[in-house]
Amino acid sequence: MTSQAASQDPACIFCKIAAGQIPAHKVYEDDQVLAFLDVGPLARGHVLIIPRSHYETLDQMPAETAAACLRVAPRLSRAVLQATGAKAYNLLQNNGRLAHQEVNHVHFHIIPKTEHGGLGIVWPAGKLDPDDAQTLRQQITQAMQADA
Amino acid sequence: MTSQAASQDPACIFCKIAAGQIPAHKVYEDDQVLAFLDVGPLARGHVLIIPRSHYETLDQMPAETAAACLRVAPRLSRAVLQATGAKAYNLLQNNGRLAHQEVNHVHFHIIPKTEHGGLGIVWPAGKLDPDDAQTLRQQITQAMQADA
Repeated sequence: MTSQAASQDPACIFCKIAAGQIPAHKVYEDDQVLAFLDVGPLARGHVLIIPRSHYETLDQMPAETAAACLRVAPRLSRAVLQATGAKAYNLLQNNGRLAHQEVNHVHFHIIPKTEHGGLGIVWPAGKLDPDDAQTLRQQITQAMQADA
Repeated sequence: MTSQAASQDPACIFCKIAAGQIPAHKVYEDDQVLAFLDVGPLARGHVLIIPRSHYETLDQMPAETAAACLRVAPRLSRAVLQATGAKAYNLLQNNGRLAHQEVNHVHFHIIPKTEHGGLGIVWPAGKLDPDDAQTLRQQITQAMQADA
């Protein structure tokens, strides 16, 4: 099995879209990345950006693949705003079923937000505890260093 | 005014954090990007990734700056998962007050999701109309081409 073959999951609907095996309303593609209209839009103009290669979650992606997905996002966002007339929007990428991920192939949603449509957000903000902040900062930075 | 000075907003709290003028619990920094703990976390380990330069929204960012913000996201996500023990999380970036943006300097939230905390999501999915999909696809791709 080549590394190219290994980076696709034959059961994955987004891999099939990337391979052209099932249709999608594509709005952008390059060597690494594809974008198309979501078939279950939260608002008109809801698009998805996906890497061509199969990764289940963001933490499993190579850094450069994540960068490639976002490189097109400013230009694609401008085009979506122009096409829809929306003034606000959310970029969302969900990891894990509990976090609302429904297809196990990394995808970044661009979702126009209007008075009547878009992503519903509930924001139960807490307050950062200064002591726990020190603990977290140390643990996260150490994990980053060990993963360099 | 140099281009460096022009890329900062003296009234912006995130520009002040990037400049070291006010403190933050930093977990990562490089030439283009900074990451730190959110002081109003939705869950333990909620972090923000920001560009050092000031852009209000994703659509205003240079492509390479957006790419730089996401390049660190896989490694930072792994570190947050390791530090918190969370298994799921959301990446979220809000554009415009209507879309829940509270600081007018682009920031990408990484928000651990657990049974008891994290981002609340409401997902009122519609169904993509095939005719409107053609219209949208044409408008978005034309806008992309005009913006190449």
